[in-house]
Amino acid sequence: MSRIDGRTADQLRPITIERGWSKHAEGSVLVSFGDTRVLCNASVTEGVPRWRKGTGEGWVTGEYAMLPRATNTRGDRESVRGKIGGRTHEISRLIGRSLRAVIDFKALGENTVVLDCDVLQADGGTRTAAITGAYVALADAVSWAQEKKLIKAKAQPLTGTVSAVSVGIVGGEPLLDLCYEEDVRAETDMNVVCTGDGRFVEVQGTAEGQPFDRAELDGLLDLAVKGCAQLDGAQRQSLAS
Amino acid sequence: MSRIDGRTADQLRPITIERGWSKHAEGSVLVSFGDTRVLCNASVTEGVPRWRKGTGEGWVTGEYAMLPRATNTRGDRESVRGKIGGRTHEISRLIGRSLRAVIDFKALGENTVVLDCDVLQADGGTRTAAITGAYVALADAVSWAQEKKLIKAKAQPLTGTVSAVSVGIVGGEPLLDLCYEEDVRAETDMNVVCTGDGRFVEVQGTAEGQPFDRAELDGLLDLAVKGCAQLDGAQRQSLAS
Amino acid sequence: MSRIDGRTADQLRPITIERGWSKHAEGSVLVSFGDTRVLCNASVTEGVPRWRKGTGEGWVTGEYAMLPRATNTRGDRESVRGKIGGRTHEISRLIGRSLRAVIDFKALGENTVVLDCDVLQADGGTRTAAITGAYVALADAVSWAQEKKLIKAKAQPLTGTVSAVSVGIVGGEPLLDLCYEEDVRAETDMNVVCTGDGRFVEVQGTAEGQPFDRAELDGLLDLAVKGCAQLDGAQRQSLAS
Amino acid sequence: MSRIDGRTADQLRPITIERGWSKHAEGSVLVSFGDTRVLCNASVTEGVPRWRKGTGEGWVTGEYAMLPRATNTRGDRESVRGKIGGRTHEISRLIGRSLRAVIDFKALGENTVVLDCDVLQADGGTRTAAITGAYVALADAVSWAQEKKLIKAKAQPLTGTVSAVSVGIVGGEPLLDLCYEEDVRAETDMNVVCTGDGRFVEVQGTAEGQPFDRAELDGLLDLAVKGCAQLDGAQRQSLAS
Amino acid sequence: MSRIDGRTADQLRPITIERGWSKHAEGSVLVSFGDTRVLCNASVTEGVPRWRKGTGEGWVTGEYAMLPRATNTRGDRESVRGKIGGRTHEISRLIGRSLRAVIDFKALGENTVVLDCDVLQADGGTRTAAITGAYVALADAVSWAQEKKLIKAKAQPLTGTVSAVSVGIVGGEPLLDLCYEEDVRAETDMNVVCTGDGRFVEVQGTAEGQPFDRAELDGLLDLAVKGCAQLDGAQRQSLAS
Amino acid sequence: MSRIDGRTADQLRPITIERGWSKHAEGSVLVSFGDTRVLCNASVTEGVPRWRKGTGEGWVTGEYAMLPRATNTRGDRESVRGKIGGRTHEISRLIGRSLRAVIDFKALGENTVVLDCDVLQADGGTRTAAITGAYVALADAVSWAQEKKLIKAKAQPLTGTVSAVSVGIVGGEPLLDLCYEEDVRAETDMNVVCTGDGRFVEVQGTAEGQPFDRAELDGLLDLAVKGCAQLDGAQRQSLAS
Repeated sequence: MSRIDGRTADQLRPITIERGWSKHAEGSVLVSFGDTRVLCNASVTEGVPRWRKGTGEGWVTGEYAMLPRATNTRGDRESVRGKIGGRTHEISRLIGRSLRAVIDFKALGENTVVLDCDVLQADGGTRTAAITGAYVALADAVSWAQEKKLIKAKAQPLTGTVSAVSVGIVGGEPLLDLCYEEDVRAETDMNVVCTGDGRFVEVQGTAEGQPFDRAELDGLLDLAVKGCAQLDGAQRQSLAS
Repeated sequence: MSRIDGRTADQLRPITIERGWSKHAEGSVLVSFGDTRVLCNASVTEGVPRWRKGTGEGWVTGEYAMLPRATNTRGDRESVRGKIGGRTHEISRLIGRSLRAVIDFKALGENTVVLDCDVLQADGGTRTAAITGAYVALADAVSWAQEKKLIKAKAQPLTGTVSAVSVGIVGGEPLLDLCYEEDVRAETDMNVVCTGDGRFVEVQGTAEGQPFDRAELDGLLDLAVKGCAQLDGAQRQSLAS
Repeated sequence: MSRIDGRTADQLRPITIERGWSKHAEGSVLVSFGDTRVLCNASVTEGVPRWRKGTGEGWVTGEYAMLPRATNTRGDRESVRGKIGGRTHEISRLIGRSLRAVIDFKALGENTVVLDCDVLQADGGTRTAAITGAYVALADAVSWAQEKKLIKAKAQPLTGTVSAVSVGIVGGEPLLDLCYEEDVRAETDMNVVCTGDGRFVEVQGTAEGQPFDRAELDGLLDLAVKGCAQLDGAQRQSLAS
Repeated sequence: MSRIDGRTADQLRPITIERGWSKHAEGSVLVSFGDTRVLCNASVTEGVPRWRKGTGEGWVTGEYAMLPRATNTRGDRESVRGKIGGRTHEISRLIGRSLRAVIDFKALGENTVVLDCDVLQADGGTRTAAITGAYVALADAVSWAQEKKLIKAKAQPLTGTVSAVSVGIVGGEPLLDLCYEEDVRAETDMNVVCTGDGRFVEVQGTAEGQPFDRAELDGLLDLAVKGCAQLDGAQRQSLAS
Repeated sequence: MSRIDGRTADQLRPITIERGWSKHAEGSVLVSFGDTRVLCNASVTEGVPRWRKGTGEGWVTGEYAMLPRATNTRGDRESVRGKIGGRTHEISRLIGRSLRAVIDFKALGENTVVLDCDVLQADGGTRTAAITGAYVALADAVSWAQEKKLIKAKAQPLTGTVSAVSVGIVGGEPLLDLCYEEDVRAETDMNVVCTGDGRFVEVQGTAEGQPFDRAELDGLLDLAVKGCAQLDGAQRQSLAS
Repeated sequence: MSRIDGRTADQLRPITIERGWSKHAEGSVLVSFGDTRVLCNASVTEGVPRWRKGTGEGWVTGEYAMLPRATNTRGDRESVRGKIGGRTHEISRLIGRSLRAVIDFKALGENTVVLDCDVLQADGGTRTAAITGAYVALADAVSWAQEKKLIKAKAQPLTGTVSAVSVGIVGGEPLLDLCYEEDVRAETDMNVVCTGDGRFVEVQGTAEGQPFDRAELDGLLDLAVKGCAQLDGAQRQSLAS
């Protein structure tokens, strides 16, 4: 059975990772998973939030947002409504946790990196694209900080790599990297964040329709691990170029 | 190896489910998982949110909050700060999704049930206690609506039961139903929502320290399924009394 | 003439004061005036608000809130609406003022006590139950602070006791401690806060229907003073146990 | 003993009531109690708030605010802070209740009158000046509505007159109509709202220092009733001119 | 062709500038342009905003607001809505910029002057009246600060004078100082802020209907310069008295 | 004298207008003025705001925002701060007014077009780039609506073209299209919005340092008119391709 866009069940959409997109940010990546495009900007500042001062440890956090017309129908701006929605909050927190999983805060020193992930165009999988792109922006920001001597010589703040992918059960079949149309029809939806060595940082599975059983869960995890391994390759290739 | 409070690794804390706690709500349950106490009130109103009108289908949603001194140090009120925090948003959404997984909206008809889950005292596992208690409050609210003829004769809005439990890896060992002290020290933390027949509604696993591997994930899922089965029993017993 | 619930005009509802309700707070009281139940938690922190620093004097303040389904029909959460309503503001301020009337700030030293009064179930008189319960929680919190040596030896921050009761004219007759049904029908409604020696800390009388004359006002004050004396007894008994 | 400004204990400050201050409002009064100046504008609109539609009854409400430099030191604007403070809320509600006490809602018909009371200069007693001035603005607005035939012929929405004054115990002595300097030093502070026939609409007494006894309360009420009688005279004179 | 109120095309409305209106503010001016009345209060405080500390330079800023019934139909309070509207923001910023154009920040020293411009009655031209009145309040506040020795002897913070006027094309004809009725019908609307020597601080022209050509723009600027010269005279006269 | 980036005084930066940037919006343009890049998305919806219903006329409005790291140092998100800043408000309103100047609302019919202008990278002139790009997006959106028959056959909602450019006096010399570095050093800053036939829609000139005289103003207007004529050409070329 072929998918809406002709892919096989375990095939990612075309992935592009464009570094140095913006001239201002210390790391700036425009990542695309098919038609999903997210601009990931990493901002480095000396110092840490108040509750962390004097610990000698750094901090990494994320903020996610969508442009109002990133989607098929226009959504109101959260700045105009005067508050951030639950989904935005949730994804921002997820991005921060995911990146902190590969950071050695002592090695980072009392510096803060904020990862702004702004969805310019959405077609499913915006949070997983955001994490995957943000990792590359973070790596560039860390290199910048090393060059600027904000980080001690020989300190290696990055302890690994991290990427993320969505998987789901659509029409009874487990699929990798759902586009929007598939996502809407999915019975089960799962986002998985993995390190480059294939371990899990975050697993979030949700039954949208019927509850799912252990075998289905296992099938989805298998797919996700495979997908993340490919994304890890794409990240390495981008950083090597 | 015995736990802080003398439990075995796969043992729940003492669970109590007190129905009819408040005289006003259509379903009102004070649930406790050890020292964690959550008041779950179900409010039934005729009608549905605007976007659902005319569909013939009902709606179920949840709101989670903590009293300011439910925890060891006092937290500011979200009403005073003027906005809801990310964690509150996230848990409220999780409660709603979990309960909607066992609801037949057609059978519910154009009625809305809101589950207010207010944590009176927190000692770890507040979200899982909230889901477990809210299900019982929801069942009572549905019975009330059936008696009041808000729901059609013979319609059965509840398609199953649902409960939730936390699991985690502490000191390298997988443990069931973490109390606060264990939760703080957990390397991996997972919340699992299951239906009474042992299938999954939601799986949320997070590496707090080291990423976790597939074997660890499998061990945690095994524990959680066992725990939910016991909670399912406690719910049935409470509803039968 | 007998009242809705069989009481005489000058009779309080059954009063219970349960100390040590929550394990976290320095003082924790679940107070009930009939079906009205309020959880009063006292939180002690070292230090005072900025405007009071360096004065050697402490501070006591109150925050009042209702759970959304404390009442017969569900109210929206103030945290969700993003702002605190006028009634909540007013009662929070009243609680703070009432307790500060029996505090010697010099003796308290630069410590702050926050009294959180959360209405779990409402049936009229929530603000008066809150003040009455909060006093007992405050007394426990002060004892705790004395034990912890946060307060100087021999310093006695409490200069007296304080309690509160509602009175009102219903069907032309002055009644003590109105329940919700009576409150709704009252022509005049008054909340009175007294010290244990029978003096007034606060008198707030409002004509809901017809304005009231001096004789009616005098009758209500007589009733309130009697009621507060009984509440003072209940507080002392609770603190003695 | 003479007061700061040379008045006797039972003497009001010079009272002026200037009608027709603004050309836009249906009733517009600039009231002054000594150096306290409040602009009271009454706005009449056809229709009532949603919860009152179809009842045939009108509504009257009040909004109180202070210009940022009405006081000796500048206060932040509540619009800039993004929320209304507790004191503002409390006084707005008091103004609304006070005026509704002399309104026959049936006679008013489904019309709404909003009384905006903006303090241009503050020197104590702003809420009592606001109520006293707002009554006159309301009376003018009702006359306007009668002329415009928004109110049925012969319907008399005003059932009486209402005014307000502050009293307090300063240096052990009960004083009428406190100016700011007296207010700051008052041991007990009371605001009393009376109808023209000398009955009470609202009595709000607060011990700022020592609790007060029944004799002191009685003395304050006597003073307040006298003061309101004089204010009632000033209102009638103004409306007659 | 004569105007609605009988003025010629290049004639200002009657201008009054009343100094010392409020007793609290360091500079307090009630300015009127015809029926437009704006209270301009200048508040001086020692110190500057955080971002300016240690520079030795002062700061001047403005805040503009309208009373809810300053206009023909009542507007909601921005404090009640919980946010400031775009128009308010825009005018507040314009007032601040206009006054800063005639301030020598070094001479002012690390002091801040806030100009609160509250529209008590609106009939067109509220922002230009506000700027014109605020300048006089600022001049008084500077004098006060000089007397209080907050400003160094011989330092002259004011480098010039500033006033503002509106001009517009109504029915094809360029008019000076539009009243509300003219403003509503204007095809082009322009606000011009000038210094006393006839140079421009701010020019804001907007086509409300048809775009305007260079000749029309020139005609409007000519009118505005003339109007500002007259306002400058009125300011000087007021400050001299 | 040559400029920072080698341009002559009356030379625009390289201008690019990329249509069809996003697949979702009815008109989508990525416009760049040198390093300033703004994504302008036009969203068409049937219907108009409440206050315009039943008039047979459409509506066009704009919303402007900057990504947090569009600038050299990261700015907080307005959604996180919970309110929109004055500058954002001001520019959003300017964009709306500018585009409405070339719209025939009757011809548009009861349809609404929202222009979202999100600055992806800022280097001066973001508002003028936004207006220039938004016009092209609006033109595409109107064509789309014509094809979809949302607009009546033969109706021509666009009555002209509109573009905008900044001009300013830097080091005493009038310059066209300031980049950020020039903007910061400008003594006078002006934004001019012109129609394709060279008339003015909006003129906003501000003295940042010294006030400017009539000759300087005239010089700036001359430059701006020339610049807009070139931008008009770029727009036409883009729409023709």
